[in-house]
Formats: sequence, structure tokens, C-alpha cells
Amino acid sequence: MKISILTLFPDMFTGFIETSIIKKARLKDLVELNIVDMRAFTEDKHNRVDDYPFGGGAGLVLMCQPVLDALKSVRTKDSKVILLSPQGPTLNQAMAYDLSEEKDLVLICGHYEGFDERIRDYIDMELSIGDYVLTGGEVAAMVVSDAIIRLVDGVITQESHEDDSFSNGLLEYPHYTRPRVYEGKEVPEVLLSGHHENIRQFRLEKSLEKTLMNRPDLLEGRDFTKEEQKIMEKLKK
Amino acid sequence: MKISILTLFPDMFTGFIETSIIKKARLKDLVELNIVDMRAFTEDKHNRVDDYPFGGGAGLVLMCQPVLDALKSVRTKDSKVILLSPQGPTLNQAMAYDLSEEKDLVLICGHYEGFDERIRDYIDMELSIGDYVLTGGEVAAMVVSDAIIRLVDGVITQESHEDDSFSNGLLEYPHYTRPRVYEGKEVPEVLLSGHHENIRQFRLEKSLEKTLMNRPDLLEGRDFTKEEQKIMEKLKK
Repeated sequence: MKISILTLFPDMFTGFIETSIIKKARLKDLVELNIVDMRAFTEDKHNRVDDYPFGGGAGLVLMCQPVLDALKSVRTKDSKVILLSPQGPTLNQAMAYDLSEEKDLVLICGHYEGFDERIRDYIDMELSIGDYVLTGGEVAAMVVSDAIIRLVDGVITQESHEDDSFSNGLLEYPHYTRPRVYEGKEVPEVLLSGHHENIRQFRLEKSLEKTLMNRPDLLEGRDFTKEEQKIMEKLKK
Repeated sequence: MKISILTLFPDMFTGFIETSIIKKARLKDLVELNIVDMRAFTEDKHNRVDDYPFGGGAGLVLMCQPVLDALKSVRTKDSKVILLSPQGPTLNQAMAYDLSEEKDLVLICGHYEGFDERIRDYIDMELSIGDYVLTGGEVAAMVVSDAIIRLVDGVITQESHEDDSFSNGLLEYPHYTRPRVYEGKEVPEVLLSGHHENIRQFRLEKSLEKTLMNRPDLLEGRDFTKEEQKIMEKLKK
């Protein structure tokens, strides 16, 4: 998979592409990250990429020319072009799975007040990472890349995905590691028992409990198994 | 405001803290960003910070000791300690406003499979940035810091905030800048008219239209003004 990120702040990505799982995925040639500086494409003699908005208002607006010329430089027939903006549909884990099967993603980072509306005519989709406003699309592009890259075949083990929060529609069960007692707080006995079926039941119950407490919205319309139904009845008491 | 970020990957933040609005806010002493390497706090002789989960399962779990000793090193009586995790409530713009009034935030970044559940006993709140899974809390910490810092007094102009998507419960209206015509696509006539009232109406209509098209959920339960009601009736036809 190739991900091209079009940005005015290429340096922001240095740490991101050189760290941890993203770096490993790049070194294994599972993913290529191509950071493209949109400013390099401006035809403005003062190197400007933004200008005042028609009709007035605060801030500067990113111009069509540098953004779309940068886009033309990387776009292929396989490209899926995504504009990062708080106005798009919100990324979720199912979308991350879908996007992880694309060959060639182009992520365009807005910045400042916004971008010329006509840029939207050249994209395939708009994507938001949540209902909040950021100074630019850069951190959003890292979020989208990170969520996708870890799902690309070979990047992390399949087993790890299956336990992810949201992957089975629930929040993940709690983890414990050594020591058995930390400042008086003990690891639940069942996890030390070696009894696989009891451990599985404990984790399912905790996963449902956590979801019910923190994110009951995730349970709406869920097709509960019989085992889950029993646990839910117990939890609701 | 001081934001301490506890991480295993301090280098990931280099670009983030040195760029654009975050850098300006730091140079103006409006915000102090303190990146804390949790690995420096481990008492393990091999410098390990994670270990196998009790009860079995994929991946390694972050241990209590390095995380909580790092936390103790930065925590003050004013600190609000936030654990970044997909299991918390999801950040939104109203929460970003609330958090921008804190004096001292501590953001703990998880990584790999998860962290020892007992760490949750030492935090004030858990926070997610969306319903997707990331390789670690680092990009989430950047998102949270970015969303908050731009709302801190003096970082960007008040006028810029008021136009933000979500700030008035709607998506932002479209922006246009020069040239008037780009590849045959024209700027809407009204924005060139200089007629402020018409421009205000056009923007409100476009803002409502965009919200209705892309995020109708944001309009549920909205207390529409009379002007907005009229526009909505027109849009629904």
C-alpha cells in the first residue's frame, strides 16, 4: 500500500514515520509513506499557498492551485483521494478495515481557516476523525494512516486485531501483567487459574460490562449471543 | 497551560511541537509542552516497560510501575490526568473547550496491546478520540493537545473560533479565495457582491445545507432560529 500525504508541514511527519509499527511496516515494504510538500507546487512568486476569503471573514483560505497541482503529481488511476476535514463522515474501525485494502491512498491536509471549496470537486471522499476542530489535517492524517496501516496484512498479528476494541462491536476486556500485587491491588484470581474457559468467560463479561458502562450506544441493535444475553441480564441487576 | 505527555515514543512529538500554531503558542508562553519518556522510569534491569498478560493473549501489556512512577514525577494538585484509550468517552468540541480551561493536563499514551488495568485507578478521566484503534496513544495525544491548544486564550483570534465547525452546532460554510475562476469553476456571485447581509444569509444556508447532507445527526434536537427554520423548509424541498 502507498499512502501519499499532501501537507504544508512535511516536518510534522518526521517522528511519525520513523517510529514503532509505522517504521517497521515501511522497512518491511508493506507500506510506502510519501510526504508531499504542497508549498513546493505554488506558482505564486512569494511562495504563498493561501489568500483572503471572498466575502470576508477571519483567516486565510488554502488556494486551489498548489493543492491540486500537488494532487496531480501523485494521483494515479488506482488512487483514492481523501480530504481530511471535520465536515466529512467520521472514521470508524469498519472504515479503517475497508481503507486498509486500498492500493493507493492520497490524504490531503487542510490548514488554517479552510480550503477553497472547489478543491472538493477533485476528491473521492471526505473524512473526519471526530467532532472537534484541529489546527490542520496533519494530525488527522497521522490518525488515519496509523489506524489503516496496523490493519494491513503482515503489519501486526491477526490475533492482535481480533481482540481490538470495536472489532467485535465491544470495548476490549481488561489486561493485567506482573506484578500480581501492585500497591495492594491484586490481579483477578481467575487470570492466574490457567482455566482457559473461565478466563474466556471472565473476559467476555468484563468486555460487556465496560461497554455497558462507558459506551452503551455500541450495544444498541447488537445481535447478542445466548451467552451474552445471560451476562447482560446479570449485569443489568 | 501546561500539558505533560507520558509516552514510550518521545521522538514522535518532535515535529508536532516544533510546527505552526503549537510552536507559536509555546514561544508566546501560552502553553508549555512537557514530553516525558516513561521508559526512563522503569526499574527493570533490561529496561522493559511491558510484559506478558496474565491469563494469556496476544501482545504485551504496559506495566504499572514505569507508567505510575512517570505520572508521580509530573503530577501536582492542579493536574487533571487523562488516559488516552479507545474505551473512554469520545472527545468533542465542547469537551475541548472545557479542557482548554485546565491549568495542568497530563496525557498518558498507551501502546501495543494495552496497559495494566490497575493504572486506571490513578487517573481522573479516560478519553478516546474516536471509534477506531491506533497503534498507540501518541497520535491521540497530539489530536487532544492540538484541539485544546488552539482554544487557549491568545493562541488564535476569537473570530476564528466562532466560525469553527461544531462551535455553533453546524458544519462550517464553504470558503473561496482567488482566482474567481479555476478550471471553469466560478466563485458564487454573492461573495463578490460586497453585500454583507446577503453574504451572511448565503453562508448560513450553505452551513445548514452541508450539515443536513453530511451530518444530519448534528441537527437532532437543535433549537432552530426562525431564520434557520425557513431555510430548513426550503432545503427539505
